[in-house]
Amino acid sequence: MTRWKLTLEYDGGPFVGWQRQDNGPSVQEAVERAIHAFSGETLTLHAAGRTDAGVHALGQVAHVDLEKSTDADTVQNAINFHLKPAPVAIVDVAAVTEDFHARFSATHRAYRYRILNRRAPPTLLAGRVWHVATPLDTAAMQDAANALIGNHDFTSFRAAACQAKSPVKTLDTLRVDRDGDEIAIAVAARSFLHHQVRNIAGTLKLVGEGKWTRADVEAALAARDRSRAGPTAPPDGLYLMRVSYDPA
Amino acid sequence: MTRWKLTLEYDGGPFVGWQRQDNGPSVQEAVERAIHAFSGETLTLHAAGRTDAGVHALGQVAHVDLEKSTDADTVQNAINFHLKPAPVAIVDVAAVTEDFHARFSATHRAYRYRILNRRAPPTLLAGRVWHVATPLDTAAMQDAANALIGNHDFTSFRAAACQAKSPVKTLDTLRVDRDGDEIAIAVAARSFLHHQVRNIAGTLKLVGEGKWTRADVEAALAARDRSRAGPTAPPDGLYLMRVSYDPA
Repeated sequence: MTRWKLTLEYDGGPFVGWQRQDNGPSVQEAVERAIHAFSGETLTLHAAGRTDAGVHALGQVAHVDLEKSTDADTVQNAINFHLKPAPVAIVDVAAVTEDFHARFSATHRAYRYRILNRRAPPTLLAGRVWHVATPLDTAAMQDAANALIGNHDFTSFRAAACQAKSPVKTLDTLRVDRDGDEIAIAVAARSFLHHQVRNIAGTLKLVGEGKWTRADVEAALAARDRSRAGPTAPPDGLYLMRVSYDPA
Repeated sequence: MTRWKLTLEYDGGPFVGWQRQDNGPSVQEAVERAIHAFSGETLTLHAAGRTDAGVHALGQVAHVDLEKSTDADTVQNAINFHLKPAPVAIVDVAAVTEDFHARFSATHRAYRYRILNRRAPPTLLAGRVWHVATPLDTAAMQDAANALIGNHDFTSFRAAACQAKSPVKTLDTLRVDRDGDEIAIAVAARSFLHHQVRNIAGTLKLVGEGKWTRADVEAALAARDRSRAGPTAPPDGLYLMRVSYDPA
């Protein structure tokens, strides 16, 4: 048996999310089926993070144990072959030791939230960004974002359905950058609460529009009450960029 | 009457190209219909360049004469409203004088050709790049590209259907850049022959693979024979980026 670490890229648009569900196609199911078609083995993929419906990934990580004796290139090419035409691809494969767990061994997760900030609707980026027509003040957004960096009780930015034991998380990075019409919010932490990034993006958008101040964001954080923070930004703009692990 | 200069962005995927045709939906028809829905006027749009089926644009330019008295913001918002859900958007509108012609006044056109150069197929970029799995040597591509810069008879890189009077063009820019898995070929000139950028991209790919040398590209150019240059690269990777005009 070999444990394989798979790095995955996908367009979340056509999926109900990473996790298998009864109500539609999931990324997990698509990859498990492709692995079965290649190896004949029926197994369960474990992912670093269960992305929601419509959320994209450039660097999701999952692991799987295969009985079949093979090499990394064959694993990658065969799974990709059987994944077609689903918009999911294995971009990297590595053999790992049995103590590696895609979810529990992860030490750092990086997300990006993309906003298209212009009057005209998206064309080539439809479904890939949050379209906000009101001009956003990114300097104000960054200033308010700084209030969220560090170790905090993020109850106000946590979905009701969140299953994490504690609402306390340490946000290592929260950077707001503009490049022309596009605003990218880079977020990184060891781990996240459910909807945490989208709730932060929805809140920072209120600041960018001038409806909220940094003080409002600080008050929302201190309130430890989901109803006090901004709305959940749509999944279209969210990308799981990278999952990091300690060197073996 | 006001002459309006429209800057357009579109996903070329669902279209038979810019120009109206009997065999399917065109970008021109989509925009002309949206203008009619807004103004009640039936008119013809003139574009800087007639992009082929599947070719994208970030900065196509067209002009149109409207009897309706209105302002630039209204023109933009109204056309964009009526364009939905087609993946076409007006990103800028300006009133221009009657001697402005989107095609004949253009002094410079910039294209980009995007190649996804990795083993795994595209997911989020499906239909937006040319997927080339063989590793490409971009330094060799740039070296060969340099042989095409300047004033040349580009007959070897011209589609049979090309209607230009002369095959002699001046290529101002031909730059090959890699950013991770993606290679961008930036091309700019006053004007282009039909399929010229895609034929150059298809030829440079042969160089990147090591199948052709710079000398082969020079010989192909000198031959003035379409059958001597490389194949036409697919439309998916081509973007009309920008059209420039002399200041009024």
